[in-house]
Amino acid sequence: MGNAYGPGTGGLFGAVFGRGEAAASTGDAAWLRAMLDVEAALARASAKAGLVDSAAAEAVTRAVATETFDIDELGAHAAAAGNPVVPLVRALVGAVPAEAASAVHKGATSQDIIDTAAMLLIKRALPPLLADLDTAADDAARLADEHRATLMSGRTLLQQALPITFGLTAAEWLSGLDRVRVSAARAGERLAVQYGGAAGTMAAVGDDGPRLAALLAAELGLEEPLLPWHTIRLGIVEPAGALAEVGVVLGKIARDVTLLAQSEVGEVREGGGPDRGGSSAMPHKRNPVAAVSVLGCTRQIPGLMATLYASGEHEYQRAAGAWHAEWEPLSGLIRLTGSAASWTRDLLGGLYADADRMRENLNATGGLPLAERLTALLAPELGRLNAHDLVRRAGARVTAEGMPLREAIWEDPEAREALKRGGKGMSDVAETLDPAAYLGATDTLIDRALAAHRHRDVTYGAE
Amino acid sequence: MGNAYGPGTGGLFGAVFGRGEAAASTGDAAWLRAMLDVEAALARASAKAGLVDSAAAEAVTRAVATETFDIDELGAHAAAAGNPVVPLVRALVGAVPAEAASAVHKGATSQDIIDTAAMLLIKRALPPLLADLDTAADDAARLADEHRATLMSGRTLLQQALPITFGLTAAEWLSGLDRVRVSAARAGERLAVQYGGAAGTMAAVGDDGPRLAALLAAELGLEEPLLPWHTIRLGIVEPAGALAEVGVVLGKIARDVTLLAQSEVGEVREGGGPDRGGSSAMPHKRNPVAAVSVLGCTRQIPGLMATLYASGEHEYQRAAGAWHAEWEPLSGLIRLTGSAASWTRDLLGGLYADADRMRENLNATGGLPLAERLTALLAPELGRLNAHDLVRRAGARVTAEGMPLREAIWEDPEAREALKRGGKGMSDVAETLDPAAYLGATDTLIDRALAAHRHRDVTYGAE
Amino acid sequence: MGNAYGPGTGGLFGAVFGRGEAAASTGDAAWLRAMLDVEAALARASAKAGLVDSAAAEAVTRAVATETFDIDELGAHAAAAGNPVVPLVRALVGAVPAEAASAVHKGATSQDIIDTAAMLLIKRALPPLLADLDTAADDAARLADEHRATLMSGRTLLQQALPITFGLTAAEWLSGLDRVRVSAARAGERLAVQYGGAAGTMAAVGDDGPRLAALLAAELGLEEPLLPWHTIRLGIVEPAGALAEVGVVLGKIARDVTLLAQSEVGEVREGGGPDRGGSSAMPHKRNPVAAVSVLGCTRQIPGLMATLYASGEHEYQRAAGAWHAEWEPLSGLIRLTGSAASWTRDLLGGLYADADRMRENLNATGGLPLAERLTALLAPELGRLNAHDLVRRAGARVTAEGMPLREAIWEDPEAREALKRGGKGMSDVAETLDPAAYLGATDTLIDRALAAHRHRDVTYGAE
Amino acid sequence: MGNAYGPGTGGLFGAVFGRGEAAASTGDAAWLRAMLDVEAALARASAKAGLVDSAAAEAVTRAVATETFDIDELGAHAAAAGNPVVPLVRALVGAVPAEAASAVHKGATSQDIIDTAAMLLIKRALPPLLADLDTAADDAARLADEHRATLMSGRTLLQQALPITFGLTAAEWLSGLDRVRVSAARAGERLAVQYGGAAGTMAAVGDDGPRLAALLAAELGLEEPLLPWHTIRLGIVEPAGALAEVGVVLGKIARDVTLLAQSEVGEVREGGGPDRGGSSAMPHKRNPVAAVSVLGCTRQIPGLMATLYASGEHEYQRAAGAWHAEWEPLSGLIRLTGSAASWTRDLLGGLYADADRMRENLNATGGLPLAERLTALLAPELGRLNAHDLVRRAGARVTAEGMPLREAIWEDPEAREALKRGGKGMSDVAETLDPAAYLGATDTLIDRALAAHRHRDVTYGAE
Repeated sequence: MGNAYGPGTGGLFGAVFGRGEAAASTGDAAWLRAMLDVEAALARASAKAGLVDSAAAEAVTRAVATETFDIDELGAHAAAAGNPVVPLVRALVGAVPAEAASAVHKGATSQDIIDTAAMLLIKRALPPLLADLDTAADDAARLADEHRATLMSGRTLLQQALPITFGLTAAEWLSGLDRVRVSAARAGERLAVQYGGAAGTMAAVGDDGPRLAALLAAELGLEEPLLPWHTIRLGIVEPAGALAEVGVVLGKIARDVTLLAQSEVGEVREGGGPDRGGSSAMPHKRNPVAAVSVLGCTRQIPGLMATLYASGEHEYQRAAGAWHAEWEPLSGLIRLTGSAASWTRDLLGGLYADADRMRENLNATGGLPLAERLTALLAPELGRLNAHDLVRRAGARVTAEGMPLREAIWEDPEAREALKRGGKGMSDVAETLDPAAYLGATDTLIDRALAAHRHRDVTYGAE
Repeated sequence: MGNAYGPGTGGLFGAVFGRGEAAASTGDAAWLRAMLDVEAALARASAKAGLVDSAAAEAVTRAVATETFDIDELGAHAAAAGNPVVPLVRALVGAVPAEAASAVHKGATSQDIIDTAAMLLIKRALPPLLADLDTAADDAARLADEHRATLMSGRTLLQQALPITFGLTAAEWLSGLDRVRVSAARAGERLAVQYGGAAGTMAAVGDDGPRLAALLAAELGLEEPLLPWHTIRLGIVEPAGALAEVGVVLGKIARDVTLLAQSEVGEVREGGGPDRGGSSAMPHKRNPVAAVSVLGCTRQIPGLMATLYASGEHEYQRAAGAWHAEWEPLSGLIRLTGSAASWTRDLLGGLYADADRMRENLNATGGLPLAERLTALLAPELGRLNAHDLVRRAGARVTAEGMPLREAIWEDPEAREALKRGGKGMSDVAETLDPAAYLGATDTLIDRALAAHRHRDVTYGAE
Repeated sequence: MGNAYGPGTGGLFGAVFGRGEAAASTGDAAWLRAMLDVEAALARASAKAGLVDSAAAEAVTRAVATETFDIDELGAHAAAAGNPVVPLVRALVGAVPAEAASAVHKGATSQDIIDTAAMLLIKRALPPLLADLDTAADDAARLADEHRATLMSGRTLLQQALPITFGLTAAEWLSGLDRVRVSAARAGERLAVQYGGAAGTMAAVGDDGPRLAALLAAELGLEEPLLPWHTIRLGIVEPAGALAEVGVVLGKIARDVTLLAQSEVGEVREGGGPDRGGSSAMPHKRNPVAAVSVLGCTRQIPGLMATLYASGEHEYQRAAGAWHAEWEPLSGLIRLTGSAASWTRDLLGGLYADADRMRENLNATGGLPLAERLTALLAPELGRLNAHDLVRRAGARVTAEGMPLREAIWEDPEAREALKRGGKGMSDVAETLDPAAYLGATDTLIDRALAAHRHRDVTYGAE
Repeated sequence: MGNAYGPGTGGLFGAVFGRGEAAASTGDAAWLRAMLDVEAALARASAKAGLVDSAAAEAVTRAVATETFDIDELGAHAAAAGNPVVPLVRALVGAVPAEAASAVHKGATSQDIIDTAAMLLIKRALPPLLADLDTAADDAARLADEHRATLMSGRTLLQQALPITFGLTAAEWLSGLDRVRVSAARAGERLAVQYGGAAGTMAAVGDDGPRLAALLAAELGLEEPLLPWHTIRLGIVEPAGALAEVGVVLGKIARDVTLLAQSEVGEVREGGGPDRGGSSAMPHKRNPVAAVSVLGCTRQIPGLMATLYASGEHEYQRAAGAWHAEWEPLSGLIRLTGSAASWTRDLLGGLYADADRMRENLNATGGLPLAERLTALLAPELGRLNAHDLVRRAGARVTAEGMPLREAIWEDPEAREALKRGGKGMSDVAETLDPAAYLGATDTLIDRALAAHRHRDVTYGAE
């Protein structure tokens, strides 16, 4: 299932949409493994609850560990019941000694197995996902610190606006990564077993249901829920929402990188091996493959979330269709979030920030973003309105002749005279128009993001 | 890739979400096959256009037919470029004699291959999909005709309303099936090759581009587009929309079946083998597995369509992510629509309509749905207002005592006298309250649906 | 903006989609109010930070409170800038004395105002929303307790399965309501001001930005964020996700009610005035208007969430379109969730549960759901296989002749003899088939839900 | 409802999301108007069918034209029935003479009125929408023709790739606009009345239903459907799909414009009045307000489509929630598509293409995009491999020193000698690297798009 670039889901598109270990813990084999693990844990929990023989439970555990179950065969027989648990239980019964048969699937219904297996899928995907997010965040932190003073143009509506630093951009990415990491980890701590039997009453095990559910949860390292959640699908949409939030942040970072890596902007470049993103036909190209792959993943998430939210409208004690419609989107969501995180780790680990190009682009506006500051400098001598007109006149030359605003204002006799009258010289003008002097709280904000990252404290509020 | 129930995508969930031949023509193997077929067709088209040697083109065609390409290997190398075409071309070049190498991938870019392969995927899924829809429609027509007079309760907001017939229900299903069949077939006729080269100018083949594109279209049985459509994603969303419309109709039918099959309604039962939908633990249960599986498929479609529509916002000459985000949802859409159609064919082929239960349920409202007609019968003698009050009074007894309205009105002395005064007897009351006499245009509408189905004429307008 | 049924958004569809106070706190007037409140709070915060005169700040606060701003006029001028803040600031400057002009919009950008106003919108909608959820939960708790022993059929895939009680159904609803109430309240505590200026550096106020942001947060009762969140849209998708979870639970409850209220099921009826849900033409009908309205609202939510998640992919320091695309879906989400909550409060407050009908429906399966228990009763005498065959034979009579399983087994000579041999009589059979004796942990689960509701403790795990 | 910039929906955000006449034909007033028009048309059709007095029908028509119906009042009373038709009918009955009362709402159900009104809404929005698309297409055609030779860089994955012309970009936009115009117009021709009565049998008018439906269709200029479509929601999703396709094309154009208008690209600028897109604080900025507004609209469409597709799963003869959930998304879809079209018309009408900047950006890659052509020029003398190495060496100087490839190759002694040996000079090199000579079928493709636009023939295939 791996590929040359590490583990993943394999297949024709797996390198893009199924990269990394989190993604690898989805797919048919992972589902089967999770379902078998739930069955084995249920057998052991049943033994601990005194409902079955412990030797029988051991036999089930052994069968699950050593027997091979044929995915296509199980799947083919899923047609009769509409889910693969029925044939799986039959196969599992067949794989244990006759006397252990009654220890299989104790009091459970298909949905108990599939829902709990889905929780295991998420639980297993989370450690590699969180590790990828952590490493990505560490790299964002490094970039934020290294480039805290690397001037670049802030851009709104894709237009150059005021100066910022690349460090601030990285700090914002960092704050997002840290925050969704916390949400994802918290979601992981709330994953609960589903155990309720055919109608949620646990009736098949008499009064032992709640205890059995608690033991099952302990076996699997999952939470025990207040009530079975077969009909209240928060068990699905809550962790899914946390993953979707991861997607939002990863997509934002990748979108920024694709834009900053544009030929005409050229402020960042992806790393990666020599053949990454290259084109033999077009030697000048260096495609931002990691960022593009992230977006190829994250852009599928909103639609999957729509399906999961819509599936929340379960009917009665088990939905006729809405339940089934959750399985593929949930797998897809885990896989795509995992792949996007793996790509982002790669992306931020190798990202090269071109400080010269950033400065060049910033200078291209000739100081105009800071025009308002210049007006303020002139206002004491000229009055606000006159100062404004004068700066506008100079600004027109900047646009027309490509001359820096600094010079345009100095060459304007009226302006120069006013400045001199106020005891100000060219250096005052230059300082006023120096983007490095107009960064406001940039440094403070970077420090905050770094401190929060260090302390793993991303709660709101500055303190 | 098949299963015990016929072809499909295999795997753990393939029987539910990947049933039938249309679904089977998606997946990695189908994508690879389609991409190879595009490359071979391009080589032959290049030969016909005089751009490459025909022997070289034959070598490419032969390699595509006989060589084995390793999906996981290709996929692993897709990481460098972000798509599997780059390694595929390399592998294909390696699989032909050196002198045929230049006949491979003539003037094409990765997107040309993937977009055109996507069209082939749809094209190949359509015949089995249309066949499933046709057979399903034939069965709906049969049910509409057989049950044209089988009375049942029409239901609005899940409440019994006025009488209809099961034939009319089937006729409405039929009209939907026929209509989406036409839309899907029409979409299939408009599938066009994408051939534009790196930036859509076809520059790598000089002036020969348009002719080559036309030859390529002819080789593949696809249309030649007005312009390359690499940036205008109607080529994707148009056929996708047609498939989504198929999903809407199949979902509606399945929803009706799950409701009609409810224990408390019991008006239809799915067929299927003896083990289908049964439960050893609960012998009374007979789950509507086909309908549930249809819904498990169709409910995933709206979210996939959201992704495809959102992906229409391509940047420049090739999108950084939006293009990639189309591949999986499009495959999924074809697979799920195909699976839903295959299940629906099965569903309608075996559906049993229980006329007795329908009549029983209809009678349970004691004639109240037709109360208004009774008012009209009494109004000439009593005036509309008095008649209305009287019927309401009788209606209250129906609800309270479970007595049919027919009797409740006849036992009301005031009503009976008024009826006699108007020369009307119990038989007039009975006829007035006979649901079979209050079916309006039911028969005409069934005839229309059947005629349209026979003539394959589903255009709007009755004539 | 209210209607005869209480506050709401008014308009043609407002009673359905905009019911209640939470919904009423969306719409143009609410947005304008929120934006003005942000501007006034910013002026006061600026005064506290020593950046502007406190008299000027008072003038702004006064203008915001007393002046009338023309929504259509502001909206019309929004065309030039693409958002209504630019004309709003102009109008506000015009509404204060000249000397207070500089106290308006201190260092802010349009996005600061709109993002923060969006947080206010949510903050203001939450108290009535939470109150509606609370009241609904109280009623669910009452139903759970009152009907803890009211037997009904559990239903899976819309088929009768095992017995449950209506109290358990209500307890599951309760657990969902309590849980999303907590999530929504928690989301409300994390709503943070957005203040960053044109590019997120707060440069226009020099070093005072962070302090000003903190003061602004205090003025508005919002949180101070770690960093400005103009580009990391968790500020939007986090609370939106909490609202969507509310929608999931409300939709599930309403779906159950529409199903339980079906003519053929008849286990619950909505309350409401005498004209609610009635139909003069069809006196037998009583449409579940509240539940239908809930679904009309909640079914719009998944699509809106898809838009909000997709909009998370902001470009650079302010998105060109993705930001704008958030405003309407977010308003819609608050309104629809609020309306659904208001309808649900109404729904659960008046819901009538028909215990007789529940029992009747349960009995209709003649004891078959408990067939397995009967097998267990017979097995000691007959062996499991023979017992199974025998029960199956009796079950066939139940289905064919409508006879209760109790009698069918007793009338079977072989079965009766075996029972007698085991010292069991008709009363043992009856007890075995008594649904009330097969409720498993129902009571415990109801107690858990009630205790959690009482203690407002909905954390996972039973204690 | 208008604003300073023309008609629209008014309100705080109406200038962005509700611009133009198509958008103006949505909203409460438009819905009310449409519902009243359906009622009046039904009265006239009933008179023509001989079911009611023609004087009564005239009275209804008159009342609809002259009476004022209070939207908030109607809306408030919609709470009892869950839709506003019930109070509307009551109000209409109250507005006509008593003897005309029976001519109101003949045999209809609420859904008949709302579904048919929805079709009218689309029908009324289409002419202005199509006009906006037409004008936009005319401008795209003008740009395609004027700039057919205006060289610019084609860009893939946001990286400069091969040369194209701005005319080709505009031609691609044109092909999209023309194609969705046809789809939208075709959808408009298929809009059909819905008339079926409470359960779709038209029973309330006896045998006259089909004729009445045909007359109603004629009155309203809508189609007569084969069957009532109350349960088969293709009547909604088909035209919705056509509108969504419009959104896909408009979003693509707007995305391109926001990118081309970036400060660092600067190849296009929006027109518009002097205050459009400007920023007093940042005089250098000129925000692409029209393009941003288009995206603010179009990005909401995929989510709305998801809701409409999901709502296709109607239950029985009228859905409990799915039907209601269609109303707002459908209105929103029409409004947003209309607004996006109006903005696009404005956008393309005023778009300025900066040919100099395009050329400059293209030159910035120093000829590297055409490196492969140079290899081909050298290959005859040097062999392909040597030629490739040589060009690569020269390319490295281009990247490092910013020197054009033309000069880098000429300054390479080995290369120059080989060229001379082959009788080729600097001019041959220059011609090889001339982007204008590497445009492939650009001209042909532009001609095709223009011809198709002229002949309004956008069928697939070149002729």
